Amino acid sequence: MELLIQKYGGTSVGTTDRIGAVAARIAAAHRAGSALVVVVSAMADTTDDLVSLARRIHPDPPARELDMLLTAGERISMALLSMALHHLGVDAVSFTGSQSGILTDNQHADAKILAVRGDRIRESLQAGRVVIVAGFQGVSSRREITTLGRGGSDTTAVALAAALGAARCEIYTDVDGVHSADPRVVPQARRIPALSYQEMLELAASGARVLHPRSVDVGWRFEVPIHVLTSFADGKGTVIRPMETIESSRVRGIACDPEIAILCAATLPSDGAARLLAGLGDAGIRTLLVVCGASEFACAVARGDLARAQVIWDAEIATLGSRSETHDDVAAVTVVGHAVHSHPGVTAQILSALSEWPVRWIATSAAGMTCIVPRAAADDATRRLHSRLGLDTP
Amino acid sequence: MELLIQKYGGTSVGTTDRIGAVAARIAAAHRAGSALVVVVSAMADTTDDLVSLARRIHPDPPARELDMLLTAGERISMALLSMALHHLGVDAVSFTGSQSGILTDNQHADAKILAVRGDRIRESLQAGRVVIVAGFQGVSSRREITTLGRGGSDTTAVALAAALGAARCEIYTDVDGVHSADPRVVPQARRIPALSYQEMLELAASGARVLHPRSVDVGWRFEVPIHVLTSFADGKGTVIRPMETIESSRVRGIACDPEIAILCAATLPSDGAARLLAGLGDAGIRTLLVVCGASEFACAVARGDLARAQVIWDAEIATLGSRSETHDDVAAVTVVGHAVHSHPGVTAQILSALSEWPVRWIATSAAGMTCIVPRAAADDATRRLHSRLGLDTP
Repeated sequence: MELLIQKYGGTSVGTTDRIGAVAARIAAAHRAGSALVVVVSAMADTTDDLVSLARRIHPDPPARELDMLLTAGERISMALLSMALHHLGVDAVSFTGSQSGILTDNQHADAKILAVRGDRIRESLQAGRVVIVAGFQGVSSRREITTLGRGGSDTTAVALAAALGAARCEIYTDVDGVHSADPRVVPQARRIPALSYQEMLELAASGARVLHPRSVDVGWRFEVPIHVLTSFADGKGTVIRPMETIESSRVRGIACDPEIAILCAATLPSDGAARLLAGLGDAGIRTLLVVCGASEFACAVARGDLARAQVIWDAEIATLGSRSETHDDVAAVTVVGHAVHSHPGVTAQILSALSEWPVRWIATSAAGMTCIVPRAAADDATRRLHSRLGLDTP
Repeated sequence: MELLIQKYGGTSVGTTDRIGAVAARIAAAHRAGSALVVVVSAMADTTDDLVSLARRIHPDPPARELDMLLTAGERISMALLSMALHHLGVDAVSFTGSQSGILTDNQHADAKILAVRGDRIRESLQAGRVVIVAGFQGVSSRREITTLGRGGSDTTAVALAAALGAARCEIYTDVDGVHSADPRVVPQARRIPALSYQEMLELAASGARVLHPRSVDVGWRFEVPIHVLTSFADGKGTVIRPMETIESSRVRGIACDPEIAILCAATLPSDGAARLLAGLGDAGIRTLLVVCGASEFACAVARGDLARAQVIWDAEIATLGSRSETHDDVAAVTVVGHAVHSHPGVTAQILSALSEWPVRWIATSAAGMTCIVPRAAADDATRRLHSRLGLDTP
């Protein structure tokens, strides 16, 4: 019997009606003969509501207790979804992250999955039950309840697919698959039928919100086929699967991340860049992009991290006797696809399409190219690239 | 160091402000030198809200999943209370029923506590932490999450006090202790400073809502001193402790339960009463009172159980070839105190005080006497008894 992992996000289970609709979808797959493990997020807004309750009590709630609090969210949605399946005559059982054997490190609020035991899941599948698993949560070696941070439920689902040897992992969201650009910005944006892990990782890391890079990374490592679908309609979605099965003669899509800021230093000593990055890393601040030239060193951080990053950066710059600039009015526009590098002329087309704006920083990776443009120009730049790179037409 | 168990009910932690007030109370006791284990219920209305969510999805939710759902309630309140203590500079840690080692049987929605392990609680107390424990919940030998049913959080608290060898168990509620009658019915009702377990059990079983009979029963078995207090003010409350320390020359109080109905059978064969009670018992219906005379057999059930009880009762009555009557317009008024039996004339005073109403059924126990009166007369009967038995004056 084929084993499927399905994951439903917060908007997919946002109301009791939506939970009923999701249950009907699961019941149909179950009756069609699949064994099913279903990962759910908390109902839309639940997590935010719990965080705001916590902040009314403590301006900076202790991370262990915040994890204890937030995991109530998936507990509610998973129990309700299980009840909805029972109502449809499908035998279902819900398990917390701890009961599912999702073992993590001890980093509260941002735990990493170390292993998946899954004994109780296997037993219940053997008994013919649909298993509902709380996403976003696990248990540490110290027996503490942990949460996985951003992208946690996607990661739970893909990790379960890898551990249980599932045929594929279906990620249900509110859009039908991955698109060549954000359809709210580019009306001509099209669904991409298939992508490599690397391309998906590049899109996800560059601002496409449909799937979190962490989960793509896990999927890539274990070569789990990931299918991105919408729970609000029937659609074909986007399949993410190993590279060799996909022709890659053209650019895949454009992603945009307007929530970044650039820190830029001039004339550093030889260990300067390493020290700047170490300072940010020690504080748990991720750098989204690093560009290094002969006379400057720049990196991008999430705008939400800028205030903390700036303090660390400025202290290091003073020690190094250098100067620096901060640019808080920029956005990263990324063209994704192996074609960016495998096809001559694509990089030139990209720069030509952006010629009317100042593009001070450019970074490339194996599956794409990122250009930093003024934030106000981000949407226009995305549309211009989408058209110029031939994505407007099938 | 003295170990105290404190239990705060749903109204005591009903809002973030209330949680802050409770934290201040706990912090004061902690700073005064007590080791503290604090049991919390779900915030007021949370459990009802979750049940109504469940019923929108399934008219009769599977018990296992309903327990999974409802235990989210205490998870939220305990994490918030722990955060509030951290905010006051008190090191606190919250544990679920499962983490606390509250081991129960497998009866979902109405589980009984079989044992309390408490290893993690002891370790945390050793480390000087205040321990917050989710009331109302435990884990079964099948590793399933269970809830304890009515009175569950009180029972958690008293069971923990017994298992951990606490000096006493403080039950915080919204009234300052146990009163000689419901103050909303009898304005002259007074706080009772001290009660025996048996008297408290009788009051609790007879409609006094301040403490659940289950928890009194556990306290009695292990002789845990129980102190009933309000979290909304400072007061002396009521102490429940072993019999020998309390003089019992007078009646303690009047309890009233208006939510009962009487099933009454005539002319039964010799095994008839046993068969009727077995039928109700097998369906999980509790009988609150059993009265047996030469020509009739009557028992009281909760009005909420009447519809189910009637079906079982009528079928058995038909098999037995008997006749029966149902009385759904009655209330049970109970006079509690060892004096009812130890002091001659008290029973006569009781019947005399009730002489203007038809009292068809009377039952006595070691600590009291229950009279069934018309429901419309229940409040007047309570006031008449309170005055006649000398409870109006200290």
